Amino acid sequence: MTDKCKILSLKETAEYLKGVENAVILTHSSPDGDTLGSGFALKRIIEILGGKAEVVCGDNVAEKFSYLGKTANLEDLDFCGKTIIAVDVADIKLMSGIPMDIRESADLCIDHHQTNKQYAKNLYLDSEASACCEIMHDLCKQLGITPDKDLASAIFTGIVTDTGCFQFTNTTSKTHIAAAELMSCGANSEFIIKLFFETKSPARLYLEKKVLENLELYFDGKCALTTLDFNTIHSENSDESELDGVAGMPRTVEGVLVGVTLKGKEEGKFKISVRTHAPADASAICTRLGGGGHVRAAGCQVTGDAETAKKAILESVAKELNI
Amino acid sequence: MTDKCKILSLKETAEYLKGVENAVILTHSSPDGDTLGSGFALKRIIEILGGKAEVVCGDNVAEKFSYLGKTANLEDLDFCGKTIIAVDVADIKLMSGIPMDIRESADLCIDHHQTNKQYAKNLYLDSEASACCEIMHDLCKQLGITPDKDLASAIFTGIVTDTGCFQFTNTTSKTHIAAAELMSCGANSEFIIKLFFETKSPARLYLEKKVLENLELYFDGKCALTTLDFNTIHSENSDESELDGVAGMPRTVEGVLVGVTLKGKEEGKFKISVRTHAPADASAICTRLGGGGHVRAAGCQVTGDAETAKKAILESVAKELNI
Repeated sequence: MTDKCKILSLKETAEYLKGVENAVILTHSSPDGDTLGSGFALKRIIEILGGKAEVVCGDNVAEKFSYLGKTANLEDLDFCGKTIIAVDVADIKLMSGIPMDIRESADLCIDHHQTNKQYAKNLYLDSEASACCEIMHDLCKQLGITPDKDLASAIFTGIVTDTGCFQFTNTTSKTHIAAAELMSCGANSEFIIKLFFETKSPARLYLEKKVLENLELYFDGKCALTTLDFNTIHSENSDESELDGVAGMPRTVEGVLVGVTLKGKEEGKFKISVRTHAPADASAICTRLGGGGHVRAAGCQVTGDAETAKKAILESVAKELNI
Repeated sequence: MTDKCKILSLKETAEYLKGVENAVILTHSSPDGDTLGSGFALKRIIEILGGKAEVVCGDNVAEKFSYLGKTANLEDLDFCGKTIIAVDVADIKLMSGIPMDIRESADLCIDHHQTNKQYAKNLYLDSEASACCEIMHDLCKQLGITPDKDLASAIFTGIVTDTGCFQFTNTTSKTHIAAAELMSCGANSEFIIKLFFETKSPARLYLEKKVLENLELYFDGKCALTTLDFNTIHSENSDESELDGVAGMPRTVEGVLVGVTLKGKEEGKFKISVRTHAPADASAICTRLGGGGHVRAAGCQVTGDAETAKKAILESVAKELNI
């Protein structure tokens, strides 16, 4: 790990990429559309500039991402003499599966997380970008590259997955301009949106049904709470990977300021996810129980049965709502 | 009703609007974000051009649309000498509640439905527009109007509601450009998206739970069918107005080509909504039962109990899937 991280401008980052001959691009663990989209977009950009690149991930990559390309096997890779570039990775800890000496030798990091830990030798950070892929689009423009269909599709993937298909508040005017340009370049928007937003596994639908069946309202409808116990999460061929986004459901109830999802872990523990609307502070609610997070999304863990966990979190919610 | 409808260009429509002194703008019954957004956007455009305008609807307008402005009471309106303009209304039949002689005297219709029946004296039709509000944006550009916050918010409303927040396949590169420009003009995008996509009534959530509880898979998982009987739809303070979009749920199941929703009408009848993924043809499935519609979304009605309705529609689905 370097002692001092050099902060690059967009122009300097573009110049840096022009000098890359052979790169290994690192993505974060629990890989999502933005880290993988950014990885494969950057690989294509480097290739267009005349270099070579491989994308790697320390975790398994879900089959649905296969249209983006094939990640390299870590065992087959020779890192010697390569430029190591991390994309969409805020913290060196978030690359489990990749050897620590490789992570520590990152030459460049391109990221949009305000919390970036500046672990790489060089960093291009744009925390206003909705997705790291929005930065990839900026780099194309800076480099004078008009994306081909595959490059446009990779960039489009990260933008739609990180913005919830242009629904989240990180979506800006610039995000829509990028989407428009990528669609004009032939991005396979219909396929990508169907894949990520219009297809649910039977297991996911089973969990959504349980969320709705177990929904309870408290404090005059200001808090909605749902419970998924361990057996529910692990029945019907479902598992924890199906839980992405489920925690957002209780907050959608009309009038609710605090949405709470209790997820049963190994016996005797509950992971609690809290999602709020302004002015309720999710972080404050979870910090009282030893957890933390952001103002609209936070989490904590409680030991005990469902009733104990429910009682503990509702007490903290009551404090936040001044009840 | 006129015998001959004059088809206008965008430029001619803009010129027409410059000459409007006092207009009544008609919206369609079961009013949605696009017809109301277009109505209030056009009212503002006419006012900016120096004229006056009122928006009317033959149906009750839901409270959630109140930020757009107030529709005029039909009883208080004097139509005499006014320019009558219909927005987002494909057919004269779709304005129930508005006196037929008023509908028949429509001077101008601005619409994006390919199926427009050309009932007005003049018509501007752009069936490539994702929403009638996208046309309002085009008109602003043609007229050299930079939308203020309220006008931008009205136009943004129709675009996000008719595209499912940029998720449906009617979303084009041009749609994203419009969204970007409207956000730059101060459209209240965060409020609007939260209102329509992140807030669900308890009644709606109850119906979604029932859709999931009653979901059945047929034909090797290629068809998902759900049933909401009359009592379910009308219990728990829910009613038919909560059903918007529910018909899209069965199609989201992984591997499903045909999603079917049976909705109980008055005793002994079922309204059936069919949603498909390519290559299954929803229109063909429903036409066999006396209904019709589009290739991805169609409907029909069957007399009989739930079992009879289910049997009838599944037979037609089987034919479509060559089973």
